[in-house]
Amino acid sequence: MHNQKPSCGSLAASKLFHSSKEPPLFFIMMRFNIKVALLMISILGFFTMFVMWSLCGDKHFRELGGQLVKSRDSISSEEIDCFINNEYVIGCRKEGDDVFLPFSFLRKYFEIYGKLVNLDGVERFEWSHNSYNKIYYPKGRYDPRGVFMYFENYNVEMRDRVKYVSAIEGVPISTQWGSHGYFYATQIAQFGLSHYSKNLTDPEPRRKVIEDSYKNQAKWIVTSDSFLDRIFDSNVSSNVMKFRTGDHISDIIYLKMDHVLDFVMNVDLMLGGNSCLSVVLQNREKGDIYNLHYISTDVTIKVQENNIYHGIGNTQEWKTLTRDLIVDLDKGLNILREKSKHKRVPRSKLKITGISLFGYGLVSNLTLSTSEHIQNFYNAAEWFVRYQDDNGGWPIPVRRHLANGFSDLQPGWYSSMGQGHALSVLARAYYHSGRDTRYLKAAIAGLKPFTVPSSKGGVLTTFMNKYSWYEEYPTSPPSFVLNGFIYSLLGLYDLMKIAPSGQADLAEELFNDGVYSLKNMITLFDMGSVTSYDLRHFTLSIAPNLARWDYHATHINQLLLLGKIMEEPLFTQTAERWRGYMNGKRAPHN
Amino acid sequence: MHNQKPSCGSLAASKLFHSSKEPPLFFIMMRFNIKVALLMISILGFFTMFVMWSLCGDKHFRELGGQLVKSRDSISSEEIDCFINNEYVIGCRKEGDDVFLPFSFLRKYFEIYGKLVNLDGVERFEWSHNSYNKIYYPKGRYDPRGVFMYFENYNVEMRDRVKYVSAIEGVPISTQWGSHGYFYATQIAQFGLSHYSKNLTDPEPRRKVIEDSYKNQAKWIVTSDSFLDRIFDSNVSSNVMKFRTGDHISDIIYLKMDHVLDFVMNVDLMLGGNSCLSVVLQNREKGDIYNLHYISTDVTIKVQENNIYHGIGNTQEWKTLTRDLIVDLDKGLNILREKSKHKRVPRSKLKITGISLFGYGLVSNLTLSTSEHIQNFYNAAEWFVRYQDDNGGWPIPVRRHLANGFSDLQPGWYSSMGQGHALSVLARAYYHSGRDTRYLKAAIAGLKPFTVPSSKGGVLTTFMNKYSWYEEYPTSPPSFVLNGFIYSLLGLYDLMKIAPSGQADLAEELFNDGVYSLKNMITLFDMGSVTSYDLRHFTLSIAPNLARWDYHATHINQLLLLGKIMEEPLFTQTAERWRGYMNGKRAPHN
Repeated sequence: MHNQKPSCGSLAASKLFHSSKEPPLFFIMMRFNIKVALLMISILGFFTMFVMWSLCGDKHFRELGGQLVKSRDSISSEEIDCFINNEYVIGCRKEGDDVFLPFSFLRKYFEIYGKLVNLDGVERFEWSHNSYNKIYYPKGRYDPRGVFMYFENYNVEMRDRVKYVSAIEGVPISTQWGSHGYFYATQIAQFGLSHYSKNLTDPEPRRKVIEDSYKNQAKWIVTSDSFLDRIFDSNVSSNVMKFRTGDHISDIIYLKMDHVLDFVMNVDLMLGGNSCLSVVLQNREKGDIYNLHYISTDVTIKVQENNIYHGIGNTQEWKTLTRDLIVDLDKGLNILREKSKHKRVPRSKLKITGISLFGYGLVSNLTLSTSEHIQNFYNAAEWFVRYQDDNGGWPIPVRRHLANGFSDLQPGWYSSMGQGHALSVLARAYYHSGRDTRYLKAAIAGLKPFTVPSSKGGVLTTFMNKYSWYEEYPTSPPSFVLNGFIYSLLGLYDLMKIAPSGQADLAEELFNDGVYSLKNMITLFDMGSVTSYDLRHFTLSIAPNLARWDYHATHINQLLLLGKIMEEPLFTQTAERWRGYMNGKRAPHN
Repeated sequence: MHNQKPSCGSLAASKLFHSSKEPPLFFIMMRFNIKVALLMISILGFFTMFVMWSLCGDKHFRELGGQLVKSRDSISSEEIDCFINNEYVIGCRKEGDDVFLPFSFLRKYFEIYGKLVNLDGVERFEWSHNSYNKIYYPKGRYDPRGVFMYFENYNVEMRDRVKYVSAIEGVPISTQWGSHGYFYATQIAQFGLSHYSKNLTDPEPRRKVIEDSYKNQAKWIVTSDSFLDRIFDSNVSSNVMKFRTGDHISDIIYLKMDHVLDFVMNVDLMLGGNSCLSVVLQNREKGDIYNLHYISTDVTIKVQENNIYHGIGNTQEWKTLTRDLIVDLDKGLNILREKSKHKRVPRSKLKITGISLFGYGLVSNLTLSTSEHIQNFYNAAEWFVRYQDDNGGWPIPVRRHLANGFSDLQPGWYSSMGQGHALSVLARAYYHSGRDTRYLKAAIAGLKPFTVPSSKGGVLTTFMNKYSWYEEYPTSPPSFVLNGFIYSLLGLYDLMKIAPSGQADLAEELFNDGVYSLKNMITLFDMGSVTSYDLRHFTLSIAPNLARWDYHATHINQLLLLGKIMEEPLFTQTAERWRGYMNGKRAPHN
């Protein structure tokens, strides 16, 4: 069992564990006689007849699996060359007056998707105009206290561009515009909003209390050089577990487990220097062991072989640690292998085989559950309270090059999307916390960058000196990114609806200005068969930057929602037209 | 011959003339004997073998027409259902991993063109992204004294939307926005510009003098009750033919002819009341007779059976009549049949069998030629001088409904395209006439509507109060039709280049303003895979009005030309990108 007891101060070179398996092969002896030979010949004959019958004839039917299935006819067609725009030639088929073109060509030419699908024994080809088809029709009236858009469907932290979730802040670290990883307000807010939304839509999580030093006391294995006790801690007004181990790795305090399915750990803890709480995960099929160490250090993450170290900070104070162990494992392996395409270990193949403690500290309320959404949400909300700067902004600490022709955004820029999303988080936190004014104060301060021109460090620009626009990327010249703008409007809306009367009038003013702009500018993004992501074609005099289908769908979803909020038919009608584009419809031509 | 002598004061009920033909059938008797039977059997056998050999085997080659031609293989494929966007099902073919889709579906789904073509015995399928592919690369620097764009390729008067060419004004009558027919400045200018351009690019026309009362005297048949003489007329300082016929139709003066190929008649004439000059055309194959009457009346056109009457005006003064007889026949037949899809009689099937005179009058310089382009051009230029109103405009006398959401243009509206084209005509007329100031004066006066806002009856609008735009259709709200705007810029350019220094500074100012607007706005028309015809999607908040391919090609041609004039890479680069769209290329997506 030594390998299943990880140390956290030093690297434990965990060996792979191979579970024994049934011998895969066995042999059956068979007597070979005349009868068998006759039988074999009969079977062979029947099989041959069946195959021939299957391949020949036309318009016949076969009974397959009790279901009447139409057999596909074999068709005779002629090869013919297709000259494409007089530029190149592909091989086609001709039957009568019609010519058939290969999908392999059409796919690339039109950027169309399609796949062969076998349904109940019948093969069919499914053509789809795009690879993305998720349109979310708002079910009811949008409620700023409720689900944010359709974010209950998001799993932000599992995205490739999330490097890992910080164990110090409990929010994701992004690699979107910088590979070293940084706090990205937009992503942190989306993380918070998705968990807030899931908290409302997910079923009540299963939650198993592992150790509360009271009714649930786990069977920790403690060596003679280590110490463990359960005491009442007046600081937290609760029973807690106090531990101290010897210096040697074998002195680790260990709880053997065999836990599946629920992989979100929540624990209150205060660790001494270089102390840690570790969780052992095992691949149930292959036996591989992974150790997740939560260690009292400011080094946020470190991965060595199968040991993934998350620093939880070096301040020796009580903390609540909420960790999705699957995410921590996945991100850790990803860092180890230094590429984003490692094979994920599915949740269903993992189990928790142990939890260990090393060093010294206090531990309380150790649980494993399906989810801890509201805890994740508040981690995000707290981050926004903690990291707001004097301008009311959440500066993005990496340089951003949007496209040639735009000035680079220098580290420290604000994004209307990050600011707006933050408002959506903070407004919900204010509401959910029972009016904790810290959240409201941060949200109101977060309006400031909306009033400062992008040329002066804010996110405000105007279209042709007439229509206000809040820039996701406050470039020079302006870029007018559509989806970020609408997200920022939703943030303003959330705040103006949740803030007590008179406290966020500026949000309402900014929202109304923005909606007025959107009404007047929305069709500038209509490309007749798709939408444009931004207006760079106008401001840089270049080709339009067409929205890929998932962004196109986002445009539609946003307009549908805003159309419902504002009871504005223009938004709804435009969204419906854009939805048609996803099925190959086009705007009329003259 | 009676039926070939038309009257013009009354309706001559011309009967159709049927030419006798060779009996279409004849019989060959054949002896049927054993040898023939054997031969037939041999041939039949050989034919059967050939057919079987053709249909079987794979990758074989046949000698056809002395040329080695790859035979098409017969391919076996499977029928498979294609589910299109989960909306409907079409029949496809499957071979291995690839699926073949029928062009009959693709054509409609993508608005793609294609046709089966047989080239030297090999059938192939030609796919083209659009039905239109005429991009004219400017050969040299654009010269306002030279060809206008690529208008030497146009035959304006043969367009369906030209009802006929007025014999009073010598310019086309449009039915584009009103079926009764009216003078449409844009069309008249295009008629003039195409003839001006053809005059520069066409070979020197063949020209046959039929009657000049001097060296060429035709053999007119004159009855005893009629009179014909050749005299010197001091008004025109030339010999002329003087005639007067009796009142009866049989008194007509007639010149029998047998003239082919050159069908443009030019004649100087002064006709008395109700007098006429008529031309007899005959279909050389079918024998049908058509009478074209040019009659001194203000009724512009009247068609009765095979008699087409053109009024040349009732003022008894010298006129030059220039008539394309093919056009006059075609338009006449079109009016008679009251639909635009009558079968045109090809030029090659017609001949002139006679010219007649009735009533009284003077005739001089009667010629038949391949073309009289410069005469047509001056007819247009004169029209512009004659019909300019006090605002410097050429009002369009019909109501125009551009689209729902735009106010209707009331009769009397001006078009920047009509005005601009007029400048191109008048500038050329000023240059070509050796500086006839009437043309220059009209052109300079024609600038006025460019300075008057469209809300006040002019053609000027602005985009977002910043960029000047000259409206082809001065709607409210503005429509920003691209091609009309660029045509108007070319008109301004032509005038500013041809006018003597200091006389058309306003043209230069308007041109520079317009080019500045175009530089800043051109990419607003870029839809990523095609262009938009106008900006109605922005001003009306509706779907974009995509340009059909011929207008898209016009946009490209105009930009290429303007790019060359201005040495402006933005125009050239944009044109090149748009040319790519014609071959299925698309703007990038994010």
